[in-house]
Amino acid sequence: MRRHYSSQLCSRSWTGVARPCPSLPQSPPPSLGKVWSSGPSAQLTSTGDSTRCYPNSQLQGMLRQSSLLVSSNQSLENFEHMKKTGDYYVIVVEDTNLGQIVATATLITEHKFIHSCAKRGRVEEVVVSDVCRGKQLGKLLVSTLTLLSKKLDCYKITLECAPKNVAFYTKFSYSASDETYMQCRFFD
Amino acid sequence: MRRHYSSQLCSRSWTGVARPCPSLPQSPPPSLGKVWSSGPSAQLTSTGDSTRCYPNSQLQGMLRQSSLLVSSNQSLENFEHMKKTGDYYVIVVEDTNLGQIVATATLITEHKFIHSCAKRGRVEEVVVSDVCRGKQLGKLLVSTLTLLSKKLDCYKITLECAPKNVAFYTKFSYSASDETYMQCRFFD
Repeated sequence: MRRHYSSQLCSRSWTGVARPCPSLPQSPPPSLGKVWSSGPSAQLTSTGDSTRCYPNSQLQGMLRQSSLLVSSNQSLENFEHMKKTGDYYVIVVEDTNLGQIVATATLITEHKFIHSCAKRGRVEEVVVSDVCRGKQLGKLLVSTLTLLSKKLDCYKITLECAPKNVAFYTKFSYSASDETYMQCRFFD
Repeated sequence: MRRHYSSQLCSRSWTGVARPCPSLPQSPPPSLGKVWSSGPSAQLTSTGDSTRCYPNSQLQGMLRQSSLLVSSNQSLENFEHMKKTGDYYVIVVEDTNLGQIVATATLITEHKFIHSCAKRGRVEEVVVSDVCRGKQLGKLLVSTLTLLSKKLDCYKITLECAPKNVAFYTKFSYSASDETYMQCRFFD
């Protein structure tokens, strides 16, 4: 059975009106089925959709949630906060046959006084379900968020990745920085 | 003449009441003059203070503002947005003799569904004026933001730095990550 996918862009405005993102590719990559057929659009209309969109999806385990449980209240509170800021752009790809989300990625915009008050984009939580590997969903997610960040006037977009994935991101004009990525971890 | 400094923590709540940050060190490092004498506090009471706090300070040039001018309106709009989100914590150190800001750093908290809806901290814009080098103001800024991120229940705090500064950050329990920092730049 051939799988069909739809992509959803959970945008800043959270309007109820489907809204195409004008900077996205016009024609669908041939292997992506229906993903590009109508173009990504802002379809999330209420917080009720949030549980379907992200927090309770099958991707949770892959998103390194650790073994701790997250209550619906916590997820909803986070969701409302992200919505309020207007700086979180969550994309999900849904298998419309199964009614399941099979891939997701997030763009976060960070505001600056420097660079003439420009924004910086950050790509986070790029995850594709194991059963959908090889369908170029990762390419779809990264190209969409990269174009979106440019459309949003970000002066740059950044991410951190495993060394084995560097070659993948260079396809989208990312390059390894001279800077060192440092972290201090308090808990997992 | 001995310089005296005061530090200001522009906090999430932006209240008008001086509010000590309980997780910060209790005693002042000997070389820091008055920085720790009363403890960092939330002193910003209105947006009117924003011009004194950050956007128009002498540090602008050091913050890679490029040659483009930023209008007061743009700065103010950015300031209001940061304030609204509650996720930006800007610290400044002021030379109280000169009435000038001589160092600054920013903590940004990023919200997650993963890690049990924990937050992630990001350190940005760590800058110390050339005339204040050697006074350990960089240590003051980084240690403050690192402690603050822990207090705010961040599961980790991260930053990107030049390789020559890696040793500096390891003093505050940061370590170089195995991940590669990638960027795609649209303009300077």
